Amino acid sequence: MIIVGELINASRKAIGEAIRAQDAEAVKKVAVDQREAGANFIDVNAGIFVGKEAEYLQWLVKTVQEATDAPCCIDSPDPNAIHAALSVHKGTAMINSISLEKSRFDSLVPVVAGTDLKVIALCMSDEGMPETTDQRLKIADRLINGLVQNNVPIDNIYVDPLVQPVATNKDFGIEFLNAIEAISKQFKGVHTMCGLSNISYGLPNRKFINQAFAIMAIAKGLDGLIINPLDKRMLAGLVTAETLFGRDNFCMNYLNAYRSQLFEF
Amino acid sequence: MIIVGELINASRKAIGEAIRAQDAEAVKKVAVDQREAGANFIDVNAGIFVGKEAEYLQWLVKTVQEATDAPCCIDSPDPNAIHAALSVHKGTAMINSISLEKSRFDSLVPVVAGTDLKVIALCMSDEGMPETTDQRLKIADRLINGLVQNNVPIDNIYVDPLVQPVATNKDFGIEFLNAIEAISKQFKGVHTMCGLSNISYGLPNRKFINQAFAIMAIAKGLDGLIINPLDKRMLAGLVTAETLFGRDNFCMNYLNAYRSQLFEF
Repeated sequence: MIIVGELINASRKAIGEAIRAQDAEAVKKVAVDQREAGANFIDVNAGIFVGKEAEYLQWLVKTVQEATDAPCCIDSPDPNAIHAALSVHKGTAMINSISLEKSRFDSLVPVVAGTDLKVIALCMSDEGMPETTDQRLKIADRLINGLVQNNVPIDNIYVDPLVQPVATNKDFGIEFLNAIEAISKQFKGVHTMCGLSNISYGLPNRKFINQAFAIMAIAKGLDGLIINPLDKRMLAGLVTAETLFGRDNFCMNYLNAYRSQLFEF
Repeated sequence: MIIVGELINASRKAIGEAIRAQDAEAVKKVAVDQREAGANFIDVNAGIFVGKEAEYLQWLVKTVQEATDAPCCIDSPDPNAIHAALSVHKGTAMINSISLEKSRFDSLVPVVAGTDLKVIALCMSDEGMPETTDQRLKIADRLINGLVQNNVPIDNIYVDPLVQPVATNKDFGIEFLNAIEAISKQFKGVHTMCGLSNISYGLPNRKFINQAFAIMAIAKGLDGLIINPLDKRMLAGLVTAETLFGRDNFCMNYLNAYRSQLFEF
């Protein structure tokens, strides 16, 4: 399970202010906290700063990597901002995200073509957001083929089938879950990845719903999540689900996590 | 989701004593509590009373049905005890359970053949307990065919793929989960059902593991559980998983459960 820590996002007030003030220590603390909680990648997003996104994204990458050995997940649709960030990045970054929207696809393919970058491929097209499993599969098929034809290895592709709120349509959860399974089965070697808090939009007690949905998605084969790794309840659910899914020899990860009292079982 | 309340089992000390003392009120309270918590069937088991099982099982059915309108899940491998229990049962009972062990299969088929009884079909054979998905599928195949040939409607069959502890073998969880999915897909109309506390045998914090495993099994299509319905954390997980699996119009069950504060979200 790959965990992308989502907290360094300029749309969060504290982070937006830290970026504006160039407060490196504040950013570093959030990076270190997420890394220690188990994040494999640290997401960096400076999207609210129109005209300064490239500069700030580059600063975020430098700042995060001064404090941790984690690679970054570079969260922008703008190829110039991504290039600026990559120019200072150490190790193998992840790009968040390409989609099938024509302008986004056409501008980001040259960034990732022939590289060893990891790429999140979001199931969104110019026809809007997919609702059914089939719609997601069709978009995933075109995205994966487009990337592979541009020399992105399939093992570096993380398809995000796009979570929609179950309060809007009772089938939005199951259609997403079945897409995880279908994509994993149909495209051998490809990964799946998602942010999932949208599932609980409009409902009370969102953390509990998000945790249950993550556990269900793991049962369907999900192997990546964009989450708040400081959510101790979520992490307890993930460790347990991984153990139950056959990804934990002798239950050692579960036992260590439980004994360390780091998570909220 | 069909919930079978498992608490009226003579192997539990308080219940064994209540049966021995013919303390109807004690049994009725446990029946009512489970029914109010959402149990669709009340399991009754008097298996520890060798020589008196039939008499006590009959008494349990009468006692439970004096206190609630719930049908019983008659938990015995003995056709005589089952017949005694059925002779006083009102409504449509469930039988827990037939298996592919020859003596058990041969003695129980005549009990259920041509009836409208619901039957739990446990994936166990004279070759022992299955470990892989394939082994479970083969046993399920023979059990389902055997029952259908004896005029048990497929809709009345609840296959229990048999949970084994993940601490014994890291793949015992995933092999079970994949069996739930394979059985649901391969035998249209059949149900799946299980007790699942064995999954966490030998590990700490079993309730949390059991809850996560139930949520994963629902994601794979499980539609029945033999559980303690008074476990408020488990019930919160089940309601939420059902909502996320498309079984809850307008999230009304989730919202009602959350607002009622009956469960532990």
